Amino acid sequence: MAPARAQKRIEGVLAPVVTPFGADLSPDAARFVRHCRWLLDRGCSGLAVFGTNSEANSLSVEEKLELLEALVRAGVAAAALMPGTGHCALTDSVKMTREAVRLGCSGVLMLPPFYYKGVSDEGLFRSFAEVIERVGDERLRLYLYHIPPVSNVPIPHDVIDRLLSRYPGIVAGVKDSSGDWQNTRAMLDRFRDRAFDVFAGSEVFLLDNLRHGGKGCITATGNVNPAAIDRVFREWRGADADRLQAGITATRKILQKLPMIPALKATIAHFGNDPQWRTVRPPLTELEPAQERALVGELRAAGFGMPGLAEIT
Amino acid sequence: MAPARAQKRIEGVLAPVVTPFGADLSPDAARFVRHCRWLLDRGCSGLAVFGTNSEANSLSVEEKLELLEALVRAGVAAAALMPGTGHCALTDSVKMTREAVRLGCSGVLMLPPFYYKGVSDEGLFRSFAEVIERVGDERLRLYLYHIPPVSNVPIPHDVIDRLLSRYPGIVAGVKDSSGDWQNTRAMLDRFRDRAFDVFAGSEVFLLDNLRHGGKGCITATGNVNPAAIDRVFREWRGADADRLQAGITATRKILQKLPMIPALKATIAHFGNDPQWRTVRPPLTELEPAQERALVGELRAAGFGMPGLAEIT
Repeated sequence: MAPARAQKRIEGVLAPVVTPFGADLSPDAARFVRHCRWLLDRGCSGLAVFGTNSEANSLSVEEKLELLEALVRAGVAAAALMPGTGHCALTDSVKMTREAVRLGCSGVLMLPPFYYKGVSDEGLFRSFAEVIERVGDERLRLYLYHIPPVSNVPIPHDVIDRLLSRYPGIVAGVKDSSGDWQNTRAMLDRFRDRAFDVFAGSEVFLLDNLRHGGKGCITATGNVNPAAIDRVFREWRGADADRLQAGITATRKILQKLPMIPALKATIAHFGNDPQWRTVRPPLTELEPAQERALVGELRAAGFGMPGLAEIT
Repeated sequence: MAPARAQKRIEGVLAPVVTPFGADLSPDAARFVRHCRWLLDRGCSGLAVFGTNSEANSLSVEEKLELLEALVRAGVAAAALMPGTGHCALTDSVKMTREAVRLGCSGVLMLPPFYYKGVSDEGLFRSFAEVIERVGDERLRLYLYHIPPVSNVPIPHDVIDRLLSRYPGIVAGVKDSSGDWQNTRAMLDRFRDRAFDVFAGSEVFLLDNLRHGGKGCITATGNVNPAAIDRVFREWRGADADRLQAGITATRKILQKLPMIPALKATIAHFGNDPQWRTVRPPLTELEPAQERALVGELRAAGFGMPGLAEIT
C-alpha cells in the first residue's frame, strides 16, 4: 500500500453517541440523527458513533451500517464521523471499516478482537494489520481503541509501535480509555514525533492531555455536556483553563456515580423531554426511577442544562 | 409460549468442533464436514459447533450459517448439533438461534453477551429471555454457556433458577467451563429435579459429573480424543472407570500445556497429514514448530493416535 497522503485530521471533542431504541429495542435512526445534529451544533467536532457508550456491540453489523448511512443521508458530514468498526470477527471488522472509508469518514475507532483474553502481541498486531491490508485504502485513518476495563484486551505500546512502523499515516492515533493518565502520558511521550494523535477517553484528562501534546478527548459525557467540554478544548491555553476543567470534571463525577450508559440516556430523556431515550438493550438495564431523580436533582443543582435539545429537529 | 413437549435430549461427549480455514483465512466447509464426520464416527454423540474452540467469535454470523447449512446439506444429522449461537448483539443471537431451531438442531449453546462486564442479574436474565421470546419456538433447547475465564461474564445460579422457572423445558442445561468442580457440583445439586442437564466443560471432570447426575461433557479435546472420552461415558458405572478417566485426563494435560486451539489444530494437521489445518484466525497464532514437535512427541509417547483421520472423506 502506498503511504497515505497528508490530510487534516480530526481533533477536539468527540462524543461516542448513545444509540436510541424504540420500544421493540430496534435502533431509532430519526432520534439518532437528531441527537447527532445537536451534538455538532453544541461543541462536538466529531462523532465517535458505535463506541462502548453507543451499545455498539449490542448491535449487528447491519444495524450499524443502516444507522451510519442514515446519518450521511441526513446530511451529517462524513468528515465529522469516526465510527467504531472493531469486532471479534475479522470479517465483520473489515466489512464495517471498508464501508466507513467508502462513505468518507474521517477515521475509524477500532477495538481489538475482545473474546479471547491474554492474546499475544503478534496476534494483536495481525488482527489490526489484516483489517488494514484487506481494506487496502490509503484514505483509512485507524484509531486504536484501548479500553481494558471493558474489553479486557489491552493494546500494548509495542504493538502500537509496530503498527505505526508498518502503516504510517494509516494508523493515526488512539483513544485511551484505560482511566490511567500515566498510560496516556507514556504514549504521548513515546509516539510524539510519529503523527499519532492521542485522545483521552474521559474529559477528566482533557487539559492534561492537551498540555502534553494530545489532540482532544472522546468522552461519554460529550453526549450531554459538549459545549463546556469544547470550551476547555478551545481555551486550554487561557488563564481560565484550570477552572473550566474543574467544572467539566465536576459534572463528569455526578454522572459516573451511576452506570454511565443508562445515566446518559436518562439525562437526555429528562432534559430533552423524550422518555423513549431511556431504553437500553440487554444486558444493560435502565436506571431505577429513584436513581434518575437523584441524578437529575444533582445535575440541576450544579446548573447543568442541555439547551436546545428538546427543540432540535 | 406453550410448555415444550417431552423429547429425548442429547447426552454424552460433544466436541466444540475446531473450524478449518483456507490460506486466505476463509472457513473451509469441506474440511469442516470431514472432521465432523470423523468425530461422529469415533465416539462423539454430538457436535457443539461454534464454541470457543471453534474460533466462533472470530467468524461472522453469515460465515457460521454457511458452515451450519453445509453440515446439514452433507447429511450430518441436525439432531447431533448444538451450535453456539450467543453473541454480544441481541439481533445476532436471535438470528442464529432461530436458524438452528429451523434446521432441527438438538439445542443451542448460548454465551451471554460478553462485551459489558459486571452486568446485573436482571440484565443477564433479560438477555437470554429476549432471545427465547423472539425465537418463540417450543422446539428450542437452550444450554447456557458458563465460561468466565474467557467471557469474563459469569452466569449466576440465581439467573439460571429464574430462567428455568420462566422457561421450563426450553432452558435445558449448561456447559460449565469455569474449571471449578465445586461450581458444577453446586448446579447439579440445586437443579437436580428440574430437567437441567449439566455438561462438564472438560473431560477431566467427566466421571465426577456423571457420578453426580450430569449428562456428559463438551470438551475441546473431544476434537482429537473422542473414542477414549466416549468410553468413560459408556463405562462410567464399570469397575474400570477410574483407570479410564485417568487415561483421558493424562492426554488432556499434555494438550493443555499449550494454547488449546492451535494445539488442537496442530494435532489434527499432524495426525491427519493435512498442514492446512494449522491455520488460525487472528488474534490467535499458530504453534511454533518446536512447540508442535514437542506436543506430537509427547502424544506419541503416550500412545495417542487418531485412527482413520487421514482417510475420512
